[in-house]
Amino acid sequence: MGSSVAELELAEPYLREVLGTVGLDVEYLRASGNTLFYQDAAGNEVPVLDLACGFGSLILGHHHPEVVARAKELLDSQVPVHAQFSRHSYANDLAAVLNRIIARETGSSEPYWAIFGNSGAESVEISIKHAEMERGARLAELVSEVEAGVAAARAAVGRGATVAPEVFAALGLPATAGFDAVADAVTTRTADLTGRAPVFLALEGGFHGKLVGSIQLTHNEGYRTPFTRLAARCRFVAVGDVAGLRAIVEQESRSLTVLTVDGDAVTGVERALPVFGGFFVEPIQGEAGIRVLPAEFGAEISRVCEETGAPLIMDEIQSGMGRSGAFLASSRIGLRGDYYLLAKSLGGGIAKSSVMLVRGERYQRDFELAHSSTFAKDAFSCHVALKVVELLEADGGAAYRMAAERGAALKSRLEKVRGDFDDVVLDVRGEGLMLGFEFRDQSSSPSAQIAQTAQEGFFGFAVAGYALRTHRLRLFQTASAMNTFRFEPSIFLSDAEIDQIDSGLRDICALLRAADGERLMGTS
Amino acid sequence: MGSSVAELELAEPYLREVLGTVGLDVEYLRASGNTLFYQDAAGNEVPVLDLACGFGSLILGHHHPEVVARAKELLDSQVPVHAQFSRHSYANDLAAVLNRIIARETGSSEPYWAIFGNSGAESVEISIKHAEMERGARLAELVSEVEAGVAAARAAVGRGATVAPEVFAALGLPATAGFDAVADAVTTRTADLTGRAPVFLALEGGFHGKLVGSIQLTHNEGYRTPFTRLAARCRFVAVGDVAGLRAIVEQESRSLTVLTVDGDAVTGVERALPVFGGFFVEPIQGEAGIRVLPAEFGAEISRVCEETGAPLIMDEIQSGMGRSGAFLASSRIGLRGDYYLLAKSLGGGIAKSSVMLVRGERYQRDFELAHSSTFAKDAFSCHVALKVVELLEADGGAAYRMAAERGAALKSRLEKVRGDFDDVVLDVRGEGLMLGFEFRDQSSSPSAQIAQTAQEGFFGFAVAGYALRTHRLRLFQTASAMNTFRFEPSIFLSDAEIDQIDSGLRDICALLRAADGERLMGTS
Repeated sequence: MGSSVAELELAEPYLREVLGTVGLDVEYLRASGNTLFYQDAAGNEVPVLDLACGFGSLILGHHHPEVVARAKELLDSQVPVHAQFSRHSYANDLAAVLNRIIARETGSSEPYWAIFGNSGAESVEISIKHAEMERGARLAELVSEVEAGVAAARAAVGRGATVAPEVFAALGLPATAGFDAVADAVTTRTADLTGRAPVFLALEGGFHGKLVGSIQLTHNEGYRTPFTRLAARCRFVAVGDVAGLRAIVEQESRSLTVLTVDGDAVTGVERALPVFGGFFVEPIQGEAGIRVLPAEFGAEISRVCEETGAPLIMDEIQSGMGRSGAFLASSRIGLRGDYYLLAKSLGGGIAKSSVMLVRGERYQRDFELAHSSTFAKDAFSCHVALKVVELLEADGGAAYRMAAERGAALKSRLEKVRGDFDDVVLDVRGEGLMLGFEFRDQSSSPSAQIAQTAQEGFFGFAVAGYALRTHRLRLFQTASAMNTFRFEPSIFLSDAEIDQIDSGLRDICALLRAADGERLMGTS
Repeated sequence: MGSSVAELELAEPYLREVLGTVGLDVEYLRASGNTLFYQDAAGNEVPVLDLACGFGSLILGHHHPEVVARAKELLDSQVPVHAQFSRHSYANDLAAVLNRIIARETGSSEPYWAIFGNSGAESVEISIKHAEMERGARLAELVSEVEAGVAAARAAVGRGATVAPEVFAALGLPATAGFDAVADAVTTRTADLTGRAPVFLALEGGFHGKLVGSIQLTHNEGYRTPFTRLAARCRFVAVGDVAGLRAIVEQESRSLTVLTVDGDAVTGVERALPVFGGFFVEPIQGEAGIRVLPAEFGAEISRVCEETGAPLIMDEIQSGMGRSGAFLASSRIGLRGDYYLLAKSLGGGIAKSSVMLVRGERYQRDFELAHSSTFAKDAFSCHVALKVVELLEADGGAAYRMAAERGAALKSRLEKVRGDFDDVVLDVRGEGLMLGFEFRDQSSSPSAQIAQTAQEGFFGFAVAGYALRTHRLRLFQTASAMNTFRFEPSIFLSDAEIDQIDSGLRDICALLRAADGERLMGTS
């Protein structure tokens, strides 16, 4: 076989082929700051301004010297990477630092406990598991209450008490049924309802990873529906649709009957079942096209969570770590999560790590014995994360101010481009260094090439290819909103880099205005 | 809040407390080869012989100099870590090398395509997703066939053909029903059966990660059952129980009716439904207590997979990468997987990565567009993995021979200890450097302390604590078989290290024989 395999590409050749149709299949050989370098045919290094930056993983840019230096120190000093089931003080240090930041930004002093993972998707999985363990505990309490109620009622009936008619009605039993039938119905209904899968809530456009639990929370149908048969249920809520949210909550809510004895009468009390596994929210949606959650709708989500007991699981995997101008994008709209999920920039552009933080009141300490991961909570990624957070927090949070200021500078230039080309640009959105630039739908472009590209959902790749080939810009569409381009550079974005973006976008806009499909596709 | 959080341990304090009861909560500060070092009260470095070695992640030991040097080179030369959606030739190089090894060990020349992840559990999730996409494609074909059959039958009935009586019977319809009722019944049954979740098969004791899809494949009840409500179904098969396996397959098998036209008669053909999502198998079970899969039962699993169309998903996360004396432990028993999962040692003890390899015939190229991970397939972890594989393959696979030879040397010493203490040692098992040493159940020990510890499921931790405190041995029980201790050191295990293990185990055995609970628990 040797030679045949050597000639085959075996690591995602189809994706590479798709990328190759527009020249995106370059191989980057070096990365520094906001720049990725490839080699041209003559062997010269060609710099590309990276605006995807690991989809938000590079708040400090590629290979930040202090992060790299820390990584090398860790390797040189042989700090153990694999030391599972021992004391990990660095993990505690990191959890403590993250807690201080959460407390500062949310004004709450309740501690958040930390469980580490290896990727953002893993932290989503971990939060699903933890939330289900928490829900399991509440279900178990409710079951005990139901059982105690049945026992008390049985004793009361033995002493001559009678079951109130409305209890029979509520259980769908004839009024002539005996107590055993009542007890059976209560017990059966409890077992049925408490054995059902939880319902998760998430927002339309939401993206929460691609593993088999978390994929169900990711709204994009192409990513999710092939795996519908695999996992728990999720209902998607349109951002801003309060009535829709309330309707879903009402549709999914269930209650259990708890029998109570009141003198000579056995009556039933309906108790709400904790059916909701959790409400997953990105304070700034990334893959949905960079959409900032409106504060009022955030407050409504918070109220629903409080009323239903569902934990508010704040997915700050892309928006967190300072990009919004605060460490937590959710804190900017006054929203406090029961859980926080962090990843991407937590790894400093080098390591792979994620963390789920869950607030004290909801924390299940048994989770520490039920969950584990060989690679997680390791010294290498924890120490790298500590260095990242140290750099973000230095000088009274200068990094957050840089994110806000550089973001504002870039956003105002994007808005000027939009102003000059509002026939082709629909919107500019976002906060800090998480910005979206949305083109108008081009599927009716006078250029047949552009129209076809747009109709086939390939417009984003076509623009990305052109931007790379012509302007040395690494631009990417967001996964679920293919006309929106993401700008998630590091806080070190320079004025010259903003100029480069400006001139590249203006050329792309002019090209779309001129409906020059041949130039866009590189066929001219 | 500041001070209160600073005083709290927020990263798994309960686990640390549990470890602390037997002195396992030391903080390791340095690691090299098979040794972890902590500092004693006087500030001296204390070496501990690590036999857990990242649960199989350290085939080359902690901080192998060539792996570390490669990692530092990658950092120094600023090789891009985040370069998603570009050409990743190193990922292809790695896939090609792994393919050459698979071809050599299995004798098959069919290529295996590679999808990368960040942890072993992620690779399990990826395989679940890929297998479900593959099953979805087979279901879609079957649905088309059913629809075509209905259309053809409808046309035939229009031309005067009649529906055979057995079709009504098979569909539970009266013989007087019209064709519309037949078509409805066929379509409804098809929609019902093809919409159901797949049934996964796995072995009792099996361990396949702890995410929310993969947790359903992990047999340990404490890890799995809190999350039963969340995900797809799995049936567990006892190793060696051929009749049990066949019974499960029969219970779960379903068929669909496809209408066929034969002259003037419409008849029905039953077609098997692909209900089985995949059969997950560890060729050497790790957490189950180091249990080598018997070759005959492996062959039976292979036959079941062939008959049902279920992919055989070979979980080599712990057993693979050379530990068994071959790169793939499954190849030693002549078993070929449709999928292979690799992780742990693939990271060289430094990086975090995993890969799912799926054979050509089953590969779904659309998976490349449906699945992605920000952190996966990165240059850092791929280049580190290439270095690891290069070291394993060097000198005609000297590393595999070392694994076999060092493993045999250690195993024979473990067996001698068992021979001398067969009143307290039940079994020695395993292949190469994946060995298990099982104590007899101590829950009836004459020592009340030892008996209680065993009854509470804490025996493993107690022995581990004693081994560390007294013999500077880092020993751990396997997760689901708490009397079995794992030995998974690197290929560089020395004779002196084997002596240290021997003397430590003999002391522990003597202590158990003497039922000296005070010494075991450190209370004397």
